[in-house]
Amino acid sequence: MPSPKSISRSAPSTVAATTIVSSLLTVQTRGAGFTDLTAEIAKLVDEAGAQEGMVTLFIRHTSASLTMQENADPTVLDDLLTALGRLAPEGAGWSHDTEGPDDMPAHIRTMLTATSLQIPVLKGRLALGTWQAIYLIEHRRAPHRREVVLQFAGRI
Amino acid sequence: MPSPKSISRSAPSTVAATTIVSSLLTVQTRGAGFTDLTAEIAKLVDEAGAQEGMVTLFIRHTSASLTMQENADPTVLDDLLTALGRLAPEGAGWSHDTEGPDDMPAHIRTMLTATSLQIPVLKGRLALGTWQAIYLIEHRRAPHRREVVLQFAGRI
Amino acid sequence: MPSPKSISRSAPSTVAATTIVSSLLTVQTRGAGFTDLTAEIAKLVDEAGAQEGMVTLFIRHTSASLTMQENADPTVLDDLLTALGRLAPEGAGWSHDTEGPDDMPAHIRTMLTATSLQIPVLKGRLALGTWQAIYLIEHRRAPHRREVVLQFAGRI
Repeated sequence: MPSPKSISRSAPSTVAATTIVSSLLTVQTRGAGFTDLTAEIAKLVDEAGAQEGMVTLFIRHTSASLTMQENADPTVLDDLLTALGRLAPEGAGWSHDTEGPDDMPAHIRTMLTATSLQIPVLKGRLALGTWQAIYLIEHRRAPHRREVVLQFAGRI
Repeated sequence: MPSPKSISRSAPSTVAATTIVSSLLTVQTRGAGFTDLTAEIAKLVDEAGAQEGMVTLFIRHTSASLTMQENADPTVLDDLLTALGRLAPEGAGWSHDTEGPDDMPAHIRTMLTATSLQIPVLKGRLALGTWQAIYLIEHRRAPHRREVVLQFAGRI
Repeated sequence: MPSPKSISRSAPSTVAATTIVSSLLTVQTRGAGFTDLTAEIAKLVDEAGAQEGMVTLFIRHTSASLTMQENADPTVLDDLLTALGRLAPEGAGWSHDTEGPDDMPAHIRTMLTATSLQIPVLKGRLALGTWQAIYLIEHRRAPHRREVVLQFAGRI
């Protein structure tokens, strides 16, 4: 089973893993759009002295969600909202409409993105790519208070 | 790097993590639709005495998937199926059709939702939001036997 | 809270979990399409002597992503690309177009699939279903060098 030349893998590093650090992030959104959580998660990693392991995010809602996306050009985020609006439009004959026309599209957009996400921690830092940021996506029009559970598991 | 006022974070709690509990869930579906797995996963957490950590779900299939969604109004689930049907319709010129017209749409709907999901455990309970339930989505028309690996990692 | 007859669950197995093994996979893609990572991940599990736990994959990019999909009929992969092309088409009036017409669709297709994935390890093997493979999806037209962090957490 030789590895194809197009894939290479580094020698694995191995550590003892004995610690879990949990924290709750509360985010006040301003209505539909993205909130960058990256700095808060980096701060948790710093404060906890996390060295190697995994940070998991879990959002406790069904009309707001999580995604990893580009942190450079803000028009990317505008286009992502446009795309979600086209994939799950308002007024498209949904049965569930008692909570407003933006509620059922919000559930669909949540299903199409992420409720839980993992980011590895290596050498004491989030192992993000250069262009990656961690976003909460508010799918409702009105501002909401959203809760995200953060949990690091690994070596501190 | 001051935290924007719109985000706050609780003081982290830290525990030693030394245990993994694994279990296999077998689900008999009745054809396309949702099966609520929440009670079974809560039972695993109870029985294992899980206190703090993460439950991971992994579905061992490519035409059935997982999602976190609203547990209150069943019309939400109807609309989610409608949305998946519009995003990945049958009879849309797919090349892969030897296993029936509902097979390729089932693969696409699996790709657009989740194969693995995490739910944190805090103070001995799943840290779900008020309206969240954990669902298996059967994407094939016919009933199927589906397997979901459950794994808790953390402190018991 | 009786379990519905349609769901059954195996007796949980419990082990001490003390080890994290991390590795970086570098993948040279040939342009838009799928690269099967399954053999490389199985090799990491073998070499690390991983017995029970979870492998997490995290891709460090916002225009390439991960998915679990069928490993048997290659037309499934063709149709998945077709589906992603229909859900996030080029030339659909995106604002972000400075990096080429395939860039914004690549970000959307990344958002609709996965940036992180988990696969359980049981009895020293990846607990994949018969038809499951782990794929990197390149969403750009040009070849790219992509990095995927692999991390096993559990008992070795």
